[in-house]
Amino acid sequence: MPLITAVDVVDVRFPTSLTADGSDAMNKDGDYSAAYVVLRTDADGVEGYGLTFTIGRGNDLVAIAARQRGEPLVGLDVDQLVGDLGGTYRRLQSDSQLRWLGPEKGVVHLALAAVMNAVWDLAARRAQQPLWRFVADLEPEALVDTMDLSYLSDVLPRHEAVAMLTALRPTLDDRLAVLDASGYPCYTTSAGWLGYSDEKLRRLCQEAVDEGYRYLKLKIGASLEDDLRRCAIAREVIGPDRHLMIDANQVWDVGTAITWTRALSHFDPLWIEEPTSPDDVLGHATIRRAVAPVGVATGEHGMNRVLFKQLFQAEAIDFCQLDSCRLGSLNEILPVMLMAAKFGVPVCPHAGGVGLCELVQHLSIIDFLVVSGSTEGRVAEYVDHLHEHFVDPCVVKDAAYVLPTQPGYSAQMHPASLDVYAYPAGSYWAGRPSVA
Amino acid sequence: MPLITAVDVVDVRFPTSLTADGSDAMNKDGDYSAAYVVLRTDADGVEGYGLTFTIGRGNDLVAIAARQRGEPLVGLDVDQLVGDLGGTYRRLQSDSQLRWLGPEKGVVHLALAAVMNAVWDLAARRAQQPLWRFVADLEPEALVDTMDLSYLSDVLPRHEAVAMLTALRPTLDDRLAVLDASGYPCYTTSAGWLGYSDEKLRRLCQEAVDEGYRYLKLKIGASLEDDLRRCAIAREVIGPDRHLMIDANQVWDVGTAITWTRALSHFDPLWIEEPTSPDDVLGHATIRRAVAPVGVATGEHGMNRVLFKQLFQAEAIDFCQLDSCRLGSLNEILPVMLMAAKFGVPVCPHAGGVGLCELVQHLSIIDFLVVSGSTEGRVAEYVDHLHEHFVDPCVVKDAAYVLPTQPGYSAQMHPASLDVYAYPAGSYWAGRPSVA
Repeated sequence: MPLITAVDVVDVRFPTSLTADGSDAMNKDGDYSAAYVVLRTDADGVEGYGLTFTIGRGNDLVAIAARQRGEPLVGLDVDQLVGDLGGTYRRLQSDSQLRWLGPEKGVVHLALAAVMNAVWDLAARRAQQPLWRFVADLEPEALVDTMDLSYLSDVLPRHEAVAMLTALRPTLDDRLAVLDASGYPCYTTSAGWLGYSDEKLRRLCQEAVDEGYRYLKLKIGASLEDDLRRCAIAREVIGPDRHLMIDANQVWDVGTAITWTRALSHFDPLWIEEPTSPDDVLGHATIRRAVAPVGVATGEHGMNRVLFKQLFQAEAIDFCQLDSCRLGSLNEILPVMLMAAKFGVPVCPHAGGVGLCELVQHLSIIDFLVVSGSTEGRVAEYVDHLHEHFVDPCVVKDAAYVLPTQPGYSAQMHPASLDVYAYPAGSYWAGRPSVA
Repeated sequence: MPLITAVDVVDVRFPTSLTADGSDAMNKDGDYSAAYVVLRTDADGVEGYGLTFTIGRGNDLVAIAARQRGEPLVGLDVDQLVGDLGGTYRRLQSDSQLRWLGPEKGVVHLALAAVMNAVWDLAARRAQQPLWRFVADLEPEALVDTMDLSYLSDVLPRHEAVAMLTALRPTLDDRLAVLDASGYPCYTTSAGWLGYSDEKLRRLCQEAVDEGYRYLKLKIGASLEDDLRRCAIAREVIGPDRHLMIDANQVWDVGTAITWTRALSHFDPLWIEEPTSPDDVLGHATIRRAVAPVGVATGEHGMNRVLFKQLFQAEAIDFCQLDSCRLGSLNEILPVMLMAAKFGVPVCPHAGGVGLCELVQHLSIIDFLVVSGSTEGRVAEYVDHLHEHFVDPCVVKDAAYVLPTQPGYSAQMHPASLDVYAYPAGSYWAGRPSVA
């Protein structure tokens, strides 16, 4: 019976601000970063890897918080830990002093996500399965036991969660055959960062088309004139049959969101993403009613399951873009997926950043196999950068994520990458002016 | 022209968990703590003091975040800084990398509150005025310039904010005369902590009555049987004419909140406080409709102005309990107060903790003098502990806050208190087992 001996956390930062990769109307100069968690044990080869994603300054706060969050795990039996994933989550989540700092949001919740992502990774590795398979193999009752259903009973009572999972179980192998053959469809954001020139935008849109993408996303929201020009370029390159999505990264108030989106509506965008504050459930509902048939998408900054519950109740969104590192890992993501399925809202998870694609492929696969049973209207985000730092990077082929086969949650990073990009002591950062 | 030379932050923790002061159904063993900010300048006697409140573990996270938040202030001219309080707020708040960790919620927002509380303190001290007077003396346009109205235009356009303030201005002196004569009414929570015995509860309720309190609050929510007994004791002691409030500290889901509150309704509570997740706007609206005439109160964990906007839009609450240290200081509190006034919801700020009463007295006075013009249905919280650590502690007389007269925001702590309770190096904590 191996025991947890340490919860190590590394502050890792990549200098992405140098190239405007990841630039948008709110975040002009992010240095993509991760609070990277390693659960150590006293058994050879038994470890768990997880992370949460930030964009630079303050990543140290999340790293320190992850150490505090993970501390109660030290000394525990690994098999008890991974055999009671719901209890493990509740044990960490219920710390009332840390809870005060959210509750269930911001730095302490990002840190909980990082630690629990590592716990789920450890669980899947113990079972010698990729995470999606580990989850798919759990019986409905056991899977519901892992979930945080607190504050959700008015929308998702436990018996209903069990019934939804049970109903889909007999047909799981049919869906698995589909994924084996074609993977899980994804879209690309790599072409459309706000800091790119028109020429680069045009070239990257064409490359995306050539690679087989049927969905492409553009960052907008800084200048309407620029947006009109950039949307025209993108629509011209991708033609009328592929989908164009636009993303304002929260820069508008409700009124501006409506007028600006309408001004771009003749480019036929599938969705307007993050039109306003991610906290504004009722604002999103107002915008959605006003900009239809353009859909409303949000969720990458959706802080917790209670926020998503209300987005569904208020019929505020057409696409649910939950984040693998902002929600409290599978324990909180699974109930959000169940609520989305109940309300008929497709889950199109947020990805990009550092490692988000590696995590998200598992989530979309789980959504299809276990929760919603459908890929209709669903497409996972894909951004082509920083994958080289991962031991088991995601593989995209013909605009689809290929089923991961290695055990775990695909979050393990190369030790050599940590040596270079750990902040501030890694070889890249040493001697450079501090970004913090 | 003095310059800011440093933003010092002290992690201060008081061992309140030893006495069950502050105990409730969610937070059984808090050690009341503060991230305490001092803005240093190169001029003798020119300093600013601010804080935010936590309940122990993780206070170090907030302290580190406050140092990061405050860093851009170093080297700035003090008079420019306090002459443009809106610009100063936006400068700190708009850091996109730190914003990612919220946005505008949790640790980074608590830290922003601590720093901006110190900036407002510095501004009032420069003007040689108590904060409430400094604010009351600002012209409506200038006061609105300090406010963060972003994401609020659908409910509070700028011109409406100016008009509301302008309409009240001619009658300010009449209201000031009322406050001079009788202070601002408050209620006590000191009697009703969950960890107190029935005997202690009964004795403290009687003392509160003897001291002239007309409002008294009880913590509930752990056991219905206990709550029925404790409410009976409180109601018996205070009689039918004084107000009893009950506070569940977020332990219920929506359905439980309704049944539990109804079970206690024959004790005629004025409000049920924090019946469920503080993020659940629609849940509060459902509860409110179901438990009337018992009122619904929440806000001490209300993370930002966007949350409050929706609480008002959804008609979810009867009492707005905004927090002086969780919202981004006056810059965000003033627009929340304006929205509350517009929707006719009385502001009854959360207090207690460390220093919250010192801050809150200013807020309720400002609400009456400048924003709502009314004390009807309004009563500020008061808890009688930890005031001895403050240089200018609040004074309560005949169940009312006496108008503060010293310059500033009343947040300055005694250096001797810091020497004892700074964590972990203060003389109290040195040598004790770590609480972190």
